[in-house]
Amino acid sequence: MKTPKSYPSWKALETHHMDMRDFSLREALTKEDRFKDFSLIMEDTLFDFSKHLVTPETIALLTDLAKESGVETMRKKMFSGEKINNTENRSVLHIACRAPKSEIINVDGENVIPFIHQVLDQIEKFTNSVRSGIHTGYTGKSITDIVNIGIGGSDLGPRYVVDALQDFCSGAKVHFVSNVDGQDISKTLEPLSPETTLFIIASKTFTTEETMMNAGVAKQWLLQTAPKSSVAQHFVAVSTNAAAVETFGIQKDNMFQFREWVGGRYSLWSAIGLSIALAIGFENFKALLNGARAMDEHFLNTPLNKNIPVLMGVLGVWYRNFYNYPAHMILPYDNRLGKIAKFTQQMDMESNGKAIDRNGHHVDYATGPIIFGEPGTDSQHSFMQWVHQSPTPVPADFILCKKPAHQLEQNHTSLTANFLAQTRALAIGQTLEEADGDSSRIFTGNRPTTSIIMRELTPYALGSLIAAYEHKVFVQGVIWNLNSFDQPGVELGKILAKPIKTMLEARIIHDDMDISTKKLAKFYMME
Amino acid sequence: MKTPKSYPSWKALETHHMDMRDFSLREALTKEDRFKDFSLIMEDTLFDFSKHLVTPETIALLTDLAKESGVETMRKKMFSGEKINNTENRSVLHIACRAPKSEIINVDGENVIPFIHQVLDQIEKFTNSVRSGIHTGYTGKSITDIVNIGIGGSDLGPRYVVDALQDFCSGAKVHFVSNVDGQDISKTLEPLSPETTLFIIASKTFTTEETMMNAGVAKQWLLQTAPKSSVAQHFVAVSTNAAAVETFGIQKDNMFQFREWVGGRYSLWSAIGLSIALAIGFENFKALLNGARAMDEHFLNTPLNKNIPVLMGVLGVWYRNFYNYPAHMILPYDNRLGKIAKFTQQMDMESNGKAIDRNGHHVDYATGPIIFGEPGTDSQHSFMQWVHQSPTPVPADFILCKKPAHQLEQNHTSLTANFLAQTRALAIGQTLEEADGDSSRIFTGNRPTTSIIMRELTPYALGSLIAAYEHKVFVQGVIWNLNSFDQPGVELGKILAKPIKTMLEARIIHDDMDISTKKLAKFYMME
Repeated sequence: MKTPKSYPSWKALETHHMDMRDFSLREALTKEDRFKDFSLIMEDTLFDFSKHLVTPETIALLTDLAKESGVETMRKKMFSGEKINNTENRSVLHIACRAPKSEIINVDGENVIPFIHQVLDQIEKFTNSVRSGIHTGYTGKSITDIVNIGIGGSDLGPRYVVDALQDFCSGAKVHFVSNVDGQDISKTLEPLSPETTLFIIASKTFTTEETMMNAGVAKQWLLQTAPKSSVAQHFVAVSTNAAAVETFGIQKDNMFQFREWVGGRYSLWSAIGLSIALAIGFENFKALLNGARAMDEHFLNTPLNKNIPVLMGVLGVWYRNFYNYPAHMILPYDNRLGKIAKFTQQMDMESNGKAIDRNGHHVDYATGPIIFGEPGTDSQHSFMQWVHQSPTPVPADFILCKKPAHQLEQNHTSLTANFLAQTRALAIGQTLEEADGDSSRIFTGNRPTTSIIMRELTPYALGSLIAAYEHKVFVQGVIWNLNSFDQPGVELGKILAKPIKTMLEARIIHDDMDISTKKLAKFYMME
Repeated sequence: MKTPKSYPSWKALETHHMDMRDFSLREALTKEDRFKDFSLIMEDTLFDFSKHLVTPETIALLTDLAKESGVETMRKKMFSGEKINNTENRSVLHIACRAPKSEIINVDGENVIPFIHQVLDQIEKFTNSVRSGIHTGYTGKSITDIVNIGIGGSDLGPRYVVDALQDFCSGAKVHFVSNVDGQDISKTLEPLSPETTLFIIASKTFTTEETMMNAGVAKQWLLQTAPKSSVAQHFVAVSTNAAAVETFGIQKDNMFQFREWVGGRYSLWSAIGLSIALAIGFENFKALLNGARAMDEHFLNTPLNKNIPVLMGVLGVWYRNFYNYPAHMILPYDNRLGKIAKFTQQMDMESNGKAIDRNGHHVDYATGPIIFGEPGTDSQHSFMQWVHQSPTPVPADFILCKKPAHQLEQNHTSLTANFLAQTRALAIGQTLEEADGDSSRIFTGNRPTTSIIMRELTPYALGSLIAAYEHKVFVQGVIWNLNSFDQPGVELGKILAKPIKTMLEARIIHDDMDISTKKLAKFYMME
């Protein structure tokens, strides 16, 4: 039976972890070679792993673990279109969305690349048409506002990217509506004009409850003033369900397709990225894809011990399984990356937040960590107290761009100084002596961090960064022997919601429910 | 030596925890009395604790623990102004900010209540003046935009409250700038007009690096077009440092004071709440304070086993210390409470993210958990997979309002059904049999949640809710024998940032630093 705990490297890592008890980052960071040995540059981006609780031996053992668990084999399988999403019998091909035209990836005997580029062409055409003002609203006015209605994967990716690339946005303003809470859509529509608003309905199945309900509200809002025929101009769909899209009133030309082999949380590269293309223009969207592609190639072709996503992945395993650190933080020192933790939280926790392995057995080891984070320097005045002094250490990624998009040099220097100071403080700590004998100011140090310094926050660089995190999650999923590509945990709540909804609508309490749910429903129904 | 592990109740809880091994929520929730026994209503708000891993014995032991650790004594000390912030030798009096005029709370022989009400009067006068258009910009135009510049406690509280009370906002739009990242202030100022923008500089010491740097940028922005004298009309300060405020050019009348006995993360009730009052009007701000006061009285006067913040607190201890659950989630089923987790993350993690107890000793037990969360139903399509099926359970608060502020009934029913279904799913799970033999769809259940149902999201109800969380954190801090009111972890980074900033400014690498920091700085300086 394949289980990570049975690999020789896992056992060796257990022993090594005990040997590392007295490892001191403060001391390790006095060695001149430490940085050279533990940092990597890919294109313009530096990844510094030297502030981790590792020696060369640790890295060797961790890459052995990656090897023994079959990371290389699974990587090859993913890139060649094999159906590695075993529970759903699907390929995992977000990576195909950023592959060049010349690539060939077959699924069930069909090369998927031409389809991908056909959709890209459609996105390009439509994007240009809206951005140039050729595609107008029903009264002939240009589109000023675009509302993407989707949830989960059909929302978080585009939302994150559009916000991160705010300096590249031009033309119509893109809004995002996701929550079924009516506050979301009603507050979003309030300042908008039906004449100049375009809706993107993003739902793989075109049956997602939240999305279809909000799409219905949007349609009604439009039709309060506009003729029925206007739906064709004001609504486009990103979906796989042609019949449902047509029934809604959306023209076939305005339906952008993707296939079942793109998982929701990996879908921003597919037609789900339409809102991104509309916000930043098609050329910039292409650059985003190209950046991801560059990371794909790095991931595919670089030896494990110099492979950025592999190192990110195995370090996470090191802390989760051997140090028992429960979480991982992402702390961008860049306001534009304000949604990176929220996005990665979905991508990572939905992928590896599982207890049943690929063989159907309950795991006896920890799997995916909690992902959280907020931008620095804000976080320094918030939960960083905990990060420095809690008895529970948590590793973190710190991210900075050398070149800001604004002119406030002093601010940027201060931001950078804080970025450097935090990782330094977490690594070296402060002894009782240095704290002048005040024990409340003792910092244990030895709190591991990765520093990532990008040159500039361009679409290309962002694409590359996102892909690195995707592959990190992939590596961890393989080591933990999980299927990172399904999400059975989403289903049970959906199933249980149906009878409860019926009950609330009828205002009659069903007896076949737990007492808490019954009483809560009753309280809710009371005036 | 006072340590929680030495209390009889702690030892009894250890034994009890073992006895609870086979406790099944699914089974417990078939008992008719379960809801009655484990839910509490305070005014219009229901707190349902019946979906927790507890029996009446658990609650009895946990309240014993609260008693033995001195929660009642410390509570009395806090409310009477004793200096329970021992490291800084300060009282902890955010609770005084919401006390009626008739109250007497002495600090160093002075009753602080008249001072508090004097500042409240000043806030009322100024708020009315701005909202009615009497206070204008330097060209005589009414104020259309207010920018609060502050960070940490001077930012997160008002930011959360103004967003939560969006339905009560009127008049000028309130913006928040916190990050030293120049992107924050430059993007915020971009669409604004100096003639009609009012700045609030919120900094206790008026020396906070981020805030003062951004205040400088704002001032320069104003003075690009406006005369120097205009600073008096366009800038107000919330601070304790009168000299620095005056040097900046702010009139004495426009300085709103608070005292050292209000901690940053508990300061929204003080003059730091000025931006809230400006956004929602003074009467609504008063209602917010009154709601908090109602919870204060409940916390002060209710027996421990019926005391909402006490139960929230001890349940957190139960999971953190006996079940070893590392985190706590806050999942509002209300978009308006979108920032509740971010706010509470600071309030909780900065308070109890500590390893040194009140006696200066390193603790040998877990302290404050990780706090995170996002609104449902969004979270259901994101990290809820992890919540349902990760091997690491994490307790959660689910929050809902009965009456929405919008008219979309269908949406609200769907939202509510999902709210109820998630806590039900987490509690009862799904067996292999129910999953038709598909092991990937097994849900263990027994994942504890609190359901909080409010009538309506009013300023009063919100005030009450925030105060409940504050007191919850207080209770846990007492049990863990921590000083929840200092934040030494913020300091070390600040100290280390100084020489690094000098280094970056001079573009010369100092040798007395760790190799990683040196090389990162070098990389940053390279073109």
